Amino acid sequence: MAIGVGLLGLGTVGAGVAAILMGPEGRHPLVGELALRRIAVRDLERPRPLELDPQLLTTSPEAVIDDPAVAIVVEVMGGLEPARSLILRAIAAGKPVVTANKAVIARYGEEIAAAAAERGVYVLIEAAVGGGIPIIEPLKQSLGGNRIQRVSGIINGTTNYILSRMADEGAAYGDVLADAQRLGYAEADPAADVQGGDAADKIAILAGLAYGGPVAREAIATEGIDRLQARDVAYAAQLGYVVKLLAVAQREGEGEPLPLDVRVHPTLLPKHHPLAGVHGVNNAILVEGDPVGRVMFYGPGAGAGPTASAVVADILNIAGIRRATGSEAGARLDPLLAASSWRRCELVDGSGTSHRNYVRLQTRDEAGVIGRIGTCFGEAGVSIQSIVQFEAREGEAGGGAEIVVITHEVRESAFRSALAAIEALEEVRTVAACLRTL
Amino acid sequence: MAIGVGLLGLGTVGAGVAAILMGPEGRHPLVGELALRRIAVRDLERPRPLELDPQLLTTSPEAVIDDPAVAIVVEVMGGLEPARSLILRAIAAGKPVVTANKAVIARYGEEIAAAAAERGVYVLIEAAVGGGIPIIEPLKQSLGGNRIQRVSGIINGTTNYILSRMADEGAAYGDVLADAQRLGYAEADPAADVQGGDAADKIAILAGLAYGGPVAREAIATEGIDRLQARDVAYAAQLGYVVKLLAVAQREGEGEPLPLDVRVHPTLLPKHHPLAGVHGVNNAILVEGDPVGRVMFYGPGAGAGPTASAVVADILNIAGIRRATGSEAGARLDPLLAASSWRRCELVDGSGTSHRNYVRLQTRDEAGVIGRIGTCFGEAGVSIQSIVQFEAREGEAGGGAEIVVITHEVRESAFRSALAAIEALEEVRTVAACLRTL
Repeated sequence: MAIGVGLLGLGTVGAGVAAILMGPEGRHPLVGELALRRIAVRDLERPRPLELDPQLLTTSPEAVIDDPAVAIVVEVMGGLEPARSLILRAIAAGKPVVTANKAVIARYGEEIAAAAAERGVYVLIEAAVGGGIPIIEPLKQSLGGNRIQRVSGIINGTTNYILSRMADEGAAYGDVLADAQRLGYAEADPAADVQGGDAADKIAILAGLAYGGPVAREAIATEGIDRLQARDVAYAAQLGYVVKLLAVAQREGEGEPLPLDVRVHPTLLPKHHPLAGVHGVNNAILVEGDPVGRVMFYGPGAGAGPTASAVVADILNIAGIRRATGSEAGARLDPLLAASSWRRCELVDGSGTSHRNYVRLQTRDEAGVIGRIGTCFGEAGVSIQSIVQFEAREGEAGGGAEIVVITHEVRESAFRSALAAIEALEEVRTVAACLRTL
Repeated sequence: MAIGVGLLGLGTVGAGVAAILMGPEGRHPLVGELALRRIAVRDLERPRPLELDPQLLTTSPEAVIDDPAVAIVVEVMGGLEPARSLILRAIAAGKPVVTANKAVIARYGEEIAAAAAERGVYVLIEAAVGGGIPIIEPLKQSLGGNRIQRVSGIINGTTNYILSRMADEGAAYGDVLADAQRLGYAEADPAADVQGGDAADKIAILAGLAYGGPVAREAIATEGIDRLQARDVAYAAQLGYVVKLLAVAQREGEGEPLPLDVRVHPTLLPKHHPLAGVHGVNNAILVEGDPVGRVMFYGPGAGAGPTASAVVADILNIAGIRRATGSEAGARLDPLLAASSWRRCELVDGSGTSHRNYVRLQTRDEAGVIGRIGTCFGEAGVSIQSIVQFEAREGEAGGGAEIVVITHEVRESAFRSALAAIEALEEVRTVAACLRTL
């Protein structure tokens, strides 16, 4: 007997999912056992990119969830509400849920997981992170034997597209953003992408799975690319680095709660780092664990087709389990697939963490400046890898000099006190940029 | 109640698995619910890298399989026999099997899958391909909504190590191989690696999963790196390419049986191709499908830790399903995880396929040679991308010229007839090398 699927939403992702379900030939035969039973849309009259029986459509998402022919509910409408309430309604009705909604999962994942565990249904979220890249299932099902040390990734395609073009063309952020908006790679309101909020949602989800406990989404230190200057991208390139918007979740010790450093910010990566070669709208996630070492997952981070592929993967997983167990709601769950949390995690104060830094200073063009800057770093115990003076172009840096420093791995607190001392030097006009470095 | 695990073999991978099971702290809590019950070893007295209760050890693999405390059998002994018979014995006993044995699965996969389906048990093989990289489960469980167009990969770490050093150092194959053997990156008998047989085993397995039907392992066109010359690696680099031992399984049409081109050979990749940046003993697998596009999986392709991580992933998957279903043998299986075949595939004759080529010719150093070679290609309908004369060094190429041609994508049959015409030219001494090109 076919397994009924109900869709909440028929935007680009929803239409992509419908297209797969309606054209099962050449795909896994389990796709052919799925039947699209009901679709909630906002406007019944809107033209659709694919031919659908108009009987399938309704403007009531509740009608989709409550339809007895719908066994699996797929939420692809986006936004926080009513998506959250609808997911909870489906769970309460004993129906497993597949969602691509990273914003809801990052904020209400605990509430949703608790409800799902209570009711004995799965809530699967492969499409919420990394578009078409299989990353959620591998983290849940394939890396469970590991102690994860770090998850780091390029998980926002819009910013990676902008950064790739800034690097390739030496273009300014604002110009590339405007062009990306024109081409449809960036939204009219790009804030969630360029300010790092979207990447923070996703790293919150990845951290929760990798370390087995939810992390406080609102506490994730987040810096976007909206203040990044083209000259820092250019200087980084001259020094052998690529600038990427990196989301990182790193274990900072042992114990319970497990201390984690979770953050999103523009980061200098050495040119040969596996993530440095990720261009355009692609995403990649690097997982480091013991004993696996480093594994990386790479692919298209967004788009109707890739995201629909991930949504259908989850639908198939639920259908596969159902074929094995015949189970309805209330059954025992596979603890890997259910991904309930199994320990508490807490975010550490960033000042105690250690990392490398890139700093650009605007200074007077005088002899001895580099020496005095070096002394300030040295006195704070900050070890320097390189210190380079770049020629300020006419009219830039007020006619003075630009000095770029890359430090070795140092404690954030020591680095900040060195910077304070440097800012107080009378030859230093300003700390013009400060970026983390891998 | 704990789930009993029995190991067949305690070499580096077996010891790695035992170490994970005996140190569950910080890993997924399901690891703590596994108990190592029995281990078959060849020699009871051999010193082990980890402390084990001697009561666990036996020299009888049958005793491990038949032990009622053992619920999951893990085969990490390698080799064709007795591994194949022991896997079948475990299946017959109704016990799920986890194996890292690519040679057995590539050759006897159909027999084993049929027995497992009949008896209602899982046989999981994540560790058989790509070491620690999750690739088998993603292919089975995360990409099922796709029509796969091509799976291509660097799936032999030994040859990739050798090729990376040949490229970096301009060293000769034989010298690097000897060094790799000294360092433990290549076996004393390197044939299975350097002649491509290991990669052919693995691409047979990947093709079977990606396309849903077994492929004839012995019919896979296989060429190793053992006749590759350093100068071809160097010329390729000058033309913007990297030479990798690539395993490819490509769909060549529609229908049943599904026509596939499956092959292993040294291949020129453009420097910016995602697989071109895979260095040393790392592996990577690129999967291209509709609608996902291109996704890549990258990581350590061998080694005790990574391979043990993959073995434990499979053990956890079986344990997770068991927690959900409580099921013993004979239960219905999750069709994704069981990965039974669902269509027939057949390998096509290579002469009908199309691809790009790199050819190195040794010729007399005379005016007009390039023109005559170009004419031969043109008359056979072979379109050329570039034709470059390299300076033959003293004593090389018999003092003549070396001409390298890179073609556009052309039918193999047309390419072969052009080569025959070129070989017949009196100015051409020999076709010194011929490599596929992406």
